[in-house]
Amino acid sequence: MPHVRVHNFSISLDGYGTGEGMSFDAPFGHAGHRLHEWMFATRFGHTLLGNSGGSNGVDQAFAERTELGIGAEIMGSGKFGPPGWQNDDTWRGWWGPNPPFHTPVFVMTHHPFPSMEMEGGTVFHFVDESPRTALELAQKAAGTLDVRVGGGPTTVRAFLEADLIDVLHVVQVPILLGRGTRLWDGLGGIEDRFNVEAVSSPSGVTHLTFTRQ
Amino acid sequence: MPHVRVHNFSISLDGYGTGEGMSFDAPFGHAGHRLHEWMFATRFGHTLLGNSGGSNGVDQAFAERTELGIGAEIMGSGKFGPPGWQNDDTWRGWWGPNPPFHTPVFVMTHHPFPSMEMEGGTVFHFVDESPRTALELAQKAAGTLDVRVGGGPTTVRAFLEADLIDVLHVVQVPILLGRGTRLWDGLGGIEDRFNVEAVSSPSGVTHLTFTRQ
Repeated sequence: MPHVRVHNFSISLDGYGTGEGMSFDAPFGHAGHRLHEWMFATRFGHTLLGNSGGSNGVDQAFAERTELGIGAEIMGSGKFGPPGWQNDDTWRGWWGPNPPFHTPVFVMTHHPFPSMEMEGGTVFHFVDESPRTALELAQKAAGTLDVRVGGGPTTVRAFLEADLIDVLHVVQVPILLGRGTRLWDGLGGIEDRFNVEAVSSPSGVTHLTFTRQ
Repeated sequence: MPHVRVHNFSISLDGYGTGEGMSFDAPFGHAGHRLHEWMFATRFGHTLLGNSGGSNGVDQAFAERTELGIGAEIMGSGKFGPPGWQNDDTWRGWWGPNPPFHTPVFVMTHHPFPSMEMEGGTVFHFVDESPRTALELAQKAAGTLDVRVGGGPTTVRAFLEADLIDVLHVVQVPILLGRGTRLWDGLGGIEDRFNVEAVSSPSGVTHLTFTRQ
């Protein structure tokens, strides 16, 4: 049975998955790059940026799992572009002509668009559906492979609320953002549905893995 | 120079230091004992309850630091008793005739009482003062020793906001309480004043240590 997975989802100690004031120049708002520095220090992060090198310890071990066995991604509107991207006919995501997904990607938005076929196998589909229906579409596209829920925090939270997530990997970064969008709001008690494991890294982050019981 | 320290301060993954609905029968509200099970599994916790045995690893190493070199404690009204304790003339704290403090303890409350001298060296003083003034009183009582800020979350947060804490040991427990009193609200950016270290324990909790730079 294929799984529904979240990987490398970074939050601050006070639980924010993005900062406030998101824009084209600040995809994570006032958080800047601080939620993801741990990832860009790894081999996985270096490769994403077209570089060689990078750390190869526990952070790398977790980071690279995101690519294993994934047949489709679902993301929220706020991950695909900055506020207002729906009004820009030329917007095709943050990632250039060859995005790092290489699978169908289902973007949840109330403004449907025609699908966008990119280089390297990524096809963006735009769906105005509930989490459950979006997941059915993604699972159909993924076949025997798993579906990744890619974020942002509002989207991950919606899928957790609907009890649609099998594996949730959260990376807690030792900063306090103070404002933004929280991952955990409204999710009291969900640990009852999961085995929860924590491991801290020499980099300072703590990897939390929720695995459905 | 003596330090101001917080130890064994347990929070849920979503940042709550107590649950909702605190009462005589539920000192931590709907959180029950879940925030402190890690501590009661240690030798330190066993000793608190008058038992022998208990774990002796990383959780114990952190837990027992709370007693080293402390000359006075400051606590909030909500730690001293359940809501309404101020109206009960016989209330002398949760801890029986010989409380585990063995030092002067300054209870921050708007309802001043005469001091209560207990067995074993604990004396409860009741002060209606700002964090800074309460700390001055506690430091005077502690002499060359450190002052512990004992909680609850509102009190620890007030001392952090006033930049009065030198060492903050937070224990993150892998549960999601969903409601209660949060530790981190309004503290965005305080990591700039601290070195932050994280270490996960086989018990499942993660110890976060903030040390003033």
